[in-house]
Amino acid sequence: MTSPSARATPAAAGQRGPADHERRAQIVEAADQHFRHYGYHKTTVADLAKAIGLSTAYIYKFFNSKQAIGEAICARCLSEITAQLRAIVTEPVSAADRLRRFHPTLARAGAALFFEERRLHDIVVTAVTENWHAGTTYEEELREMVRTLVVEGREAGEFERETPLDEVCLAIGETLWPFAHPLMLEDKLDRMEAATAALAGLVLRALRP
Amino acid sequence: MTSPSARATPAAAGQRGPADHERRAQIVEAADQHFRHYGYHKTTVADLAKAIGLSTAYIYKFFNSKQAIGEAICARCLSEITAQLRAIVTEPVSAADRLRRFHPTLARAGAALFFEERRLHDIVVTAVTENWHAGTTYEEELREMVRTLVVEGREAGEFERETPLDEVCLAIGETLWPFAHPLMLEDKLDRMEAATAALAGLVLRALRP
Repeated sequence: MTSPSARATPAAAGQRGPADHERRAQIVEAADQHFRHYGYHKTTVADLAKAIGLSTAYIYKFFNSKQAIGEAICARCLSEITAQLRAIVTEPVSAADRLRRFHPTLARAGAALFFEERRLHDIVVTAVTENWHAGTTYEEELREMVRTLVVEGREAGEFERETPLDEVCLAIGETLWPFAHPLMLEDKLDRMEAATAALAGLVLRALRP
Repeated sequence: MTSPSARATPAAAGQRGPADHERRAQIVEAADQHFRHYGYHKTTVADLAKAIGLSTAYIYKFFNSKQAIGEAICARCLSEITAQLRAIVTEPVSAADRLRRFHPTLARAGAALFFEERRLHDIVVTAVTENWHAGTTYEEELREMVRTLVVEGREAGEFERETPLDEVCLAIGETLWPFAHPLMLEDKLDRMEAATAALAGLVLRALRP
């Protein structure tokens, strides 16, 4: 049986045992509740075991460590952001139109995730600053989506092709981090819309043929 | 008598008493040594008083609080970065040539300050994340220098003038923060040169008339 929360655990680090197990989903759900309520740092594996009525040893059949459970939660959170961006990337409109919406969508999705669900913010900060697998995957996905848009725009003749592709993608990637990183985004909530629109405009002017 | 360290205290918040006083410079020097050695958070005003052979009450004649002393140290540190940038801004070469060196110089100066003098890094992180006066002044100075370069480049016909000036300056400012903020810069030390060169290139392509 596939649990409705099986999506909770996409290829996160430190997991073991059968991937599609109801208990795994149950552990992730309990952890999600606890981390929101009490915060990641104050929750122990023993707290989770008690909440579900399992032994800690049973939980360790599925996850190496508390961090591995945190990774699963983080991966789920961050995949909500990347799913919104991926929806833009695959739309049948010009690359410029898609790229223009990339920065604002990233910032809005991050703001909703990090600041409206405040407790989860702590875990995402930990993931990004301690280079958890989930944070690294997130950065790689953003980079790969930017590359897709630039390549498609170049192929369609929308964007200049003289600058090395890697250099262009690196630069655009750098313009995203202030809105991808929860600590940076927090500083910018008041000017988020203006700043992301201005940055998207700058990037598109730089890409003119 | 003007102490050689009078430059230590440019218009920082929370200071009082005569500006140009040898004791003030002595306090700042002692604080600088202590903050480097033991860190900002572990140093107390009593430690400083003891080191100089003064009473804490005497120190409070010059500074409102430990933070006010920290502000003076921070302002001095950050002004070392902005001095390097200001030297670029006033060079008699094209605005494009000056702007091209802005991101790399900011990153290198920050890396030297934040990571080679590791203990001071902590105080600058505190200043930037807690919106100390010194951090805010630093951001304003960066913004103002960017504006000067863009305006001069526009006047010289080097840069496009169709996009609203405020929008362009806001966007370029956003491209600087990942290299101005100690926490962000720390994540990027390995790709700092490539990333700042790529960003400067992107900005200059965006500014083409």
